[in-house]
Amino acid sequence: MTFKRVAIIGLGLLGGSIGLAVRDYLPGAITTGYDADPATRRRAAERGLVATVCETAAAAVRNADLVILCVPVGAMAAAGAEIAAALPLHALVSDVGSSKQAVAEALAVALPGHAVIPAHPVAGTERSGADAGFAALFQQRWCILTPPADADPAQVAALTDFWEALGAHVEIMEAAHHDRVLAVTSHLPHLIAYTIVGTASDLETVTQGEVIKYSAGGFRDFTRIAASDPVMWRDVFLTNKDAVLEMLQRFSEDLTALQRAIRVGDGDQLFDHFSRTRAIRRSIIEQGQDDARPDFGRSDHGDEKP
Amino acid sequence: MTFKRVAIIGLGLLGGSIGLAVRDYLPGAITTGYDADPATRRRAAERGLVATVCETAAAAVRNADLVILCVPVGAMAAAGAEIAAALPLHALVSDVGSSKQAVAEALAVALPGHAVIPAHPVAGTERSGADAGFAALFQQRWCILTPPADADPAQVAALTDFWEALGAHVEIMEAAHHDRVLAVTSHLPHLIAYTIVGTASDLETVTQGEVIKYSAGGFRDFTRIAASDPVMWRDVFLTNKDAVLEMLQRFSEDLTALQRAIRVGDGDQLFDHFSRTRAIRRSIIEQGQDDARPDFGRSDHGDEKP
Repeated sequence: MTFKRVAIIGLGLLGGSIGLAVRDYLPGAITTGYDADPATRRRAAERGLVATVCETAAAAVRNADLVILCVPVGAMAAAGAEIAAALPLHALVSDVGSSKQAVAEALAVALPGHAVIPAHPVAGTERSGADAGFAALFQQRWCILTPPADADPAQVAALTDFWEALGAHVEIMEAAHHDRVLAVTSHLPHLIAYTIVGTASDLETVTQGEVIKYSAGGFRDFTRIAASDPVMWRDVFLTNKDAVLEMLQRFSEDLTALQRAIRVGDGDQLFDHFSRTRAIRRSIIEQGQDDARPDFGRSDHGDEKP
Repeated sequence: MTFKRVAIIGLGLLGGSIGLAVRDYLPGAITTGYDADPATRRRAAERGLVATVCETAAAAVRNADLVILCVPVGAMAAAGAEIAAALPLHALVSDVGSSKQAVAEALAVALPGHAVIPAHPVAGTERSGADAGFAALFQQRWCILTPPADADPAQVAALTDFWEALGAHVEIMEAAHHDRVLAVTSHLPHLIAYTIVGTASDLETVTQGEVIKYSAGGFRDFTRIAASDPVMWRDVFLTNKDAVLEMLQRFSEDLTALQRAIRVGDGDQLFDHFSRTRAIRRSIIEQGQDDARPDFGRSDHGDEKP
């Protein structure tokens, strides 16, 4: 079982990247696509993000055997409703949303009787929109599938093959566990980054100009993920509330402990904590999930090292 | 007034980079250096971080007209005491520490009667040690000087010229203001990053293996700065306690507000906050303080963009 006609609803960073990746790595498949924004549809056509840009979501899915919803998590129910009438019975529906229990529930309601296997490629950049996508986005990244208990194994296998063809490693996981894992590896980091960037821009004693000027001391790292798409992230926090609040509680406890260590001048506790965290970065680099060059290799400085 | 003999005490990332930068960009000056760790001294000699590696700090400064202390902030007083007897009367003493009031006080006590102009080049990577330095570290980065009120203007000008020759932009600031600015642009981000990396590795419901595997969702950005030198950072928090605790208080208030917005499902507040933070990143990139390529350009993906 192989997908030959892939419909992509939503042509931003993720949808556009899937379209380009199918063109480059799955030449046997053809793509259709739709985006609610007319300007995005025009730009998608100019860039060739999909072979055919349609004027409605229904038209895009009419002949599809795989439909991938690439809209913010909060818009999944509406996107499902828009395609429900035109969706072929045999077509598999999937998505790329960052919270999976909420998506599964929304699509079960919007598309009763249709096969749905939610997916989450753990990949992205801080860019969004029709100009942001690129074919290699999923190379060496993980894509998590959260098939329901009654999913057809042949469809799970076909969706696995699809993502592997796009360059991803595929992992199967329960939706609830996915939501907890991503709460700590993605959602909490984004919330923290959004918070600190907001804090830094609201101070009375330090100007925003100074914050920008001296950002190379660490702050700039946070501004990258705090530049991510606001609608997407609003929806993530609204739909993965419980797991995010649980992780946030743990973070706050740990921060309070370090705050106290600073206040009482407990250098040993600070040193012990700061020593522990080095090992995790080493593992991330060993597993190919980040660049080993210092400073992410973003300056060319690292290249001058012997 | 130009420095011809530069002594560097401490040959890690910063000290080593200064030595290499003087060699490349100030060929008229000669360097001596010392590090308390014999292995670092050996490696410094192998890499040629300074022209002459000395066996004591006193020997390194004996003929110097500029001495730069590149040791953790908590070790400044001891480093000052070590060189006091051998330090030529006319020599200017400076440093590269990340908190400036504490350094000024420590060196005033350790080196009475000597000219001291503290400095802080806002540059670095997550690496440390004798292998970490490179000549271009200071290119396009800011270097903040915090001269005392009675500093000799000719010495301030000479130190400015020195850092500009190494590629930095120089800014003059009061030490107390420096400490507050850096608390928000550097110290708080490091504290937050150290905290979240610790939190993520201590969970019961999500394994450390999962955290590493799915780190590309945002978490990995924090692990880079949480891999920085633990001794250096312990000392920063112990010596810039008041400003760090003040900024941390503001951050905690803002985080609590976002936590509440998530809990009550206030999507508008989340959206408004997440929209505001994009502009700051744009300014940082416009001012050349970060890489404009998506994902810091660390994958090659960005290069495929049209």
